[in-house]
Amino acid sequence: MAELSGERFRVWYRLSGDAKTAREKAEDICVEQTVEFPRELVQENAAGVIGQVESFEMLDPTHSLACITFAAETVGTELTQLINVVFGNISLKPGIRVERIELSAGLLGALKGPRLGRDGLRARLGVLQRPLLCTALKPMGLAARDLAKLAYELALGGIDIIKDDHGLADQSFAPYRERVQYCVEQVERANRETGYRCIYVPNVTASNHELAARADFARRAGAGGLLVAPGLTGFDAMRSLADDDRIALPILSHPAFQGSMVTNPDNGFSHYALFGQLPRIAGADATIFPNCGGRFSFSCEECASIAQGTLAPMGHLKPIFPTPGGGMSLERVPKMLDIYGRDVIFLIGGGLHQHGSDLIAACRYFHKLVATM
Amino acid sequence: MAELSGERFRVWYRLSGDAKTAREKAEDICVEQTVEFPRELVQENAAGVIGQVESFEMLDPTHSLACITFAAETVGTELTQLINVVFGNISLKPGIRVERIELSAGLLGALKGPRLGRDGLRARLGVLQRPLLCTALKPMGLAARDLAKLAYELALGGIDIIKDDHGLADQSFAPYRERVQYCVEQVERANRETGYRCIYVPNVTASNHELAARADFARRAGAGGLLVAPGLTGFDAMRSLADDDRIALPILSHPAFQGSMVTNPDNGFSHYALFGQLPRIAGADATIFPNCGGRFSFSCEECASIAQGTLAPMGHLKPIFPTPGGGMSLERVPKMLDIYGRDVIFLIGGGLHQHGSDLIAACRYFHKLVATM
Repeated sequence: MAELSGERFRVWYRLSGDAKTAREKAEDICVEQTVEFPRELVQENAAGVIGQVESFEMLDPTHSLACITFAAETVGTELTQLINVVFGNISLKPGIRVERIELSAGLLGALKGPRLGRDGLRARLGVLQRPLLCTALKPMGLAARDLAKLAYELALGGIDIIKDDHGLADQSFAPYRERVQYCVEQVERANRETGYRCIYVPNVTASNHELAARADFARRAGAGGLLVAPGLTGFDAMRSLADDDRIALPILSHPAFQGSMVTNPDNGFSHYALFGQLPRIAGADATIFPNCGGRFSFSCEECASIAQGTLAPMGHLKPIFPTPGGGMSLERVPKMLDIYGRDVIFLIGGGLHQHGSDLIAACRYFHKLVATM
Repeated sequence: MAELSGERFRVWYRLSGDAKTAREKAEDICVEQTVEFPRELVQENAAGVIGQVESFEMLDPTHSLACITFAAETVGTELTQLINVVFGNISLKPGIRVERIELSAGLLGALKGPRLGRDGLRARLGVLQRPLLCTALKPMGLAARDLAKLAYELALGGIDIIKDDHGLADQSFAPYRERVQYCVEQVERANRETGYRCIYVPNVTASNHELAARADFARRAGAGGLLVAPGLTGFDAMRSLADDDRIALPILSHPAFQGSMVTNPDNGFSHYALFGQLPRIAGADATIFPNCGGRFSFSCEECASIAQGTLAPMGHLKPIFPTPGGGMSLERVPKMLDIYGRDVIFLIGGGLHQHGSDLIAACRYFHKLVATM
């Protein structure tokens, strides 16, 4: 017989349909995500692992919110299986959206969470109050030396975090190792001139067998953080990099390939859970997402909810930085400050290049704009 | 300057909106998935990597199909970056669905693809013509010995492939290593009695640092295949297991956590691409998906399109088995044969248990039903 400690964690699901349909969906989730077996055939020795509907309320005539609890034992200690219990098979069923996850003490205890979080990253960068400035090295197609030249100018202009564009992997025009080496050199050179502590953050999203080696190379080369797209690598791969004490670098989470989880309001995840909670659970120190008003389609309310997910209490898991980007311009900085407050990383890529022909001047303008906030 | 060989691969996207909107979307994909930079600022040395719209046709007044080609160099050789170019950032934009992927010779050459494919798996199981029979060990909550007892009965009844339910990970009630050991023993015992060559396929979906160790343990214990949910591990993790010559076991791909990619018809992937092409690209020998008429919501046309994706020419990538399951009953077997033909793995889980109180008899009935096909 399955021995259960009584420890349970909670997941809130938003369900589509009238009250009867939604209640059936809630009961279905309890079974589908655990025993996945006709309920009437589940014998006593397994019945305890079936999920339980703790609360149910109608939000409007066609949507409801159900809180379902699961025995911690259904997960064990692995993040892959946690995500599987939260939204594995039921991702294939329409009308179910994960709104919020509340982990139990034991499950939280199995997670290290973000290594630095907001305070740790601020301390490392020596920027204690103002919003942090981030940009991306691009476009793909430039040679490593050209990207490094850009990195130098961006660092000279006062950017705090210079990350690879997420499309820079290990292509022939700018191979990973060469790129990392050159970019670190140029950012360090700029730091010597400015006295700033800008970091270069290479994209280590890579083949499964290459991931740890890329991260280790980055560390040895002197990179200041790692960019990972967990939609491509799996969330647990990001966690494994975050947890690695030999690497000990801050992690920026990139949303590539995760969009379909939020484009249908009746299936997938809330923005809060997908871009606020999950990256934090998986050890990221900052979560990149497309800001409202840019070239993507998130609303300002959705973006604000992500920021809430980065900060809401989750045991010992540190708050992390919301990092809105995606077609942002310098003109939108004040509006972004309204939404996020000062605990934010502003990610502006192409917008810096569009600000004028002098990239260093554009960065300095950006830096000055934010420094007074 | 980015040196390009001229090798390009094709992706067909279904776009929402009128002709003007859709054409703009197509042009946007070309930029967003490559340089991710204002087109007017991209200089000659990077411009070659921007995608190109090869063809565009309206499907109906609000949907179109665009074929976009990308330079092979945008990918390099990594599956993570291939998926990123196909649907990384644009997953975050509404109204874009990947219909079909046509890899170039060089990219195909970098992939091993399925180790066994349909013919190889048939040869290994000694079943050359009829559909293959598969079931899942469940429910979660049973002890390893109880699951192994079930495995014995299922194998005795003539099932070809006994896989773990995808919810069985490394939980306290049936720890992975114990479960694998017992289940292999009991399946081998049944095989000695029947003369069949049933295989046990444990679920190795696990933490990133555990994945290879689980697979290796399975091989050494005598398991006959591996179950992986690439939505949880990342596609490349599945590929790494498939490519590993020391393991050399067939791979079953499970769709957990991938559902949101297909629940919105205007964003994500076609069933053909997500469940037919991608698992094959990532080295699976069989692709599990919810059959029409079961407890999920795929239509029979969508299921048939998956089967097409498992078979359509893709260079040296072997055809793989469509493996419809998800609330199937024995009564639906003839209908499934209509859809899939004989090159199919029938996955029936709870349905075998619902067929009557004698599990072995239910399996024998299933076996006989299929043997005459």
